[in-house]
Amino acid sequence: MQNRKVKIIGTGKYMPKRCVSDVEMDAVLGVPEGWVRRKTNVVQRYFIEDETASEMGAKAAYAALEAAGLEFADIDCLVCASGTMEQPIPCTAVLIQEAMGQQHSGVPAFDVNSTCLSFIAGLDVMSYLVHAGRYRHVLLVSTEVASKGLNWGQKESAALFGDGAAAVIIGPSGEKELSQIVYAGMETFSAGAHMSEIRGGGSARHASAYTAESRDHYLFDMQGDALYRMASQKLPPFLSRLLAGAGCGLDEIRLVIPHQGSVMAMRLLARKLGIPDERMLCITEEHGNTIAASIPMGIHEAIRLERIRRGDRVLLLGTSAGLTLGGVVLDY
Amino acid sequence: MQNRKVKIIGTGKYMPKRCVSDVEMDAVLGVPEGWVRRKTNVVQRYFIEDETASEMGAKAAYAALEAAGLEFADIDCLVCASGTMEQPIPCTAVLIQEAMGQQHSGVPAFDVNSTCLSFIAGLDVMSYLVHAGRYRHVLLVSTEVASKGLNWGQKESAALFGDGAAAVIIGPSGEKELSQIVYAGMETFSAGAHMSEIRGGGSARHASAYTAESRDHYLFDMQGDALYRMASQKLPPFLSRLLAGAGCGLDEIRLVIPHQGSVMAMRLLARKLGIPDERMLCITEEHGNTIAASIPMGIHEAIRLERIRRGDRVLLLGTSAGLTLGGVVLDY
Repeated sequence: MQNRKVKIIGTGKYMPKRCVSDVEMDAVLGVPEGWVRRKTNVVQRYFIEDETASEMGAKAAYAALEAAGLEFADIDCLVCASGTMEQPIPCTAVLIQEAMGQQHSGVPAFDVNSTCLSFIAGLDVMSYLVHAGRYRHVLLVSTEVASKGLNWGQKESAALFGDGAAAVIIGPSGEKELSQIVYAGMETFSAGAHMSEIRGGGSARHASAYTAESRDHYLFDMQGDALYRMASQKLPPFLSRLLAGAGCGLDEIRLVIPHQGSVMAMRLLARKLGIPDERMLCITEEHGNTIAASIPMGIHEAIRLERIRRGDRVLLLGTSAGLTLGGVVLDY
Repeated sequence: MQNRKVKIIGTGKYMPKRCVSDVEMDAVLGVPEGWVRRKTNVVQRYFIEDETASEMGAKAAYAALEAAGLEFADIDCLVCASGTMEQPIPCTAVLIQEAMGQQHSGVPAFDVNSTCLSFIAGLDVMSYLVHAGRYRHVLLVSTEVASKGLNWGQKESAALFGDGAAAVIIGPSGEKELSQIVYAGMETFSAGAHMSEIRGGGSARHASAYTAESRDHYLFDMQGDALYRMASQKLPPFLSRLLAGAGCGLDEIRLVIPHQGSVMAMRLLARKLGIPDERMLCITEEHGNTIAASIPMGIHEAIRLERIRRGDRVLLLGTSAGLTLGGVVLDY
């Protein structure tokens, strides 16, 4: 069974207080003025000051509750769908519940992680539990602090990322409502496992083994070209299978909300996939790549900007470290 | 909908090469001989030498495939359900796919994390996708390296843990088969979020901020007494709700497979919950607390030791950092 009578009820977003312009990033990276904008198209991104991931997640979550016209008491499950964690134990969803001031609620809280596609994985999986009636309202929160794990020596990738959080509440779609999740797919090819990684900080290379000399192992390391080649080879057949599963053509998709990895890669891939510019949502210029928060942030912006209305068919699509490809076709 | 026609098809386990006796642990911790056995009842635990979490997970996974009479080609989704990660990016499930030599398979791979209850969360959630026909066979792998994050200064908790991996394959249960998941429940009370934690290694206190002085922040920190008090207050009403949901009494449960947190706490709680000793599985003496691997390892041992047979009603039950309570009632 693929079709799920599940809808997005409300969305919210939170951006950290500190907005960093492309010119400021030029200075941080020690490159000539204009380099960051030319290389990445990212005009501004946000970096945390004193905010934590759970605080950002909590603020995005309350914004989503307000948009949905719900209260926390209406939430049956809280899933953190992020690629970065606040601390190794407990999981980030627990810390979000705490930051929301709901320590005694008993609402189940756990994490789903597929790096940049964590939201896709979380939405896909949890929608089955909503459809089955196990949970009525599920709060999905993607909250990312990219800035702590960037390697300023890898300027082209460091210039892409930003911090931020987005939250989405899903619930059952009534019999007469058009909203539904039509089809979803995910494929992982670990042949690309080491093209995009942070090697240190887990059990393989524990934080307590950190030294100034081994610093690079604890920071994000991306082989952008290899990754792009692999993604551009795998994405077209993946998208064909996804659309075949959904039983629709690209022309029936009102808006594609891609993972905001990089503007250049997105545009190149959109051309290769045959998606016209006006049906691609691009919010990278004002946010940077906010890891798993980028897709739910895209949904939030698409609704806010009235790029989608109830019943419109939407395609969420992206790649993540893995290499994993993921997509969801839904009627908003 | 709670009842799911899903069954456990096969299980596997892998223990690291190095077995550490209680006497050796006495020496490691600098305590008198006999202290570790008296305080923890853990006679032996295993610590990795050159093994990685993904290698252990891959070996447990292949053992589960063999037990199930399946090949990797039969697997539709690979979920790593662990409380520790091998490296921050990519997720551990991707690294397990790679360690299994299935880099080109395309089988979706992502992580579910609820610390010690990660397997319960993974089984609970993924069973809905199997029931709905989205995936036929899901491979759940819990692989844990506790030894890297232990604080040898906190002797009573350090003496409890061990490394190891367990894997479980679930699939649809035929119409005439008794096997099913009857009911599952999870509750999180983040009032206990800081009673059991590792504060350093995520975005709040990044690995690159590690210093010898801040070492304790990067290691496991447990307030055992406070945790036990909270768990013993929350567990009885949680279990009542779980059994009410399952529509059965404790007397109908053939075997309780608890999270193997600590022998003492397990026995005290069993008494409080009214579970007779002979219907509790205890494998802690020979394995230690293997975090999320402890419940699937318990299932594996219960099958191997013929403590359960097809159709027997089983209760999986435990607590994890959160504080989270989780349970699954299933007919094996």
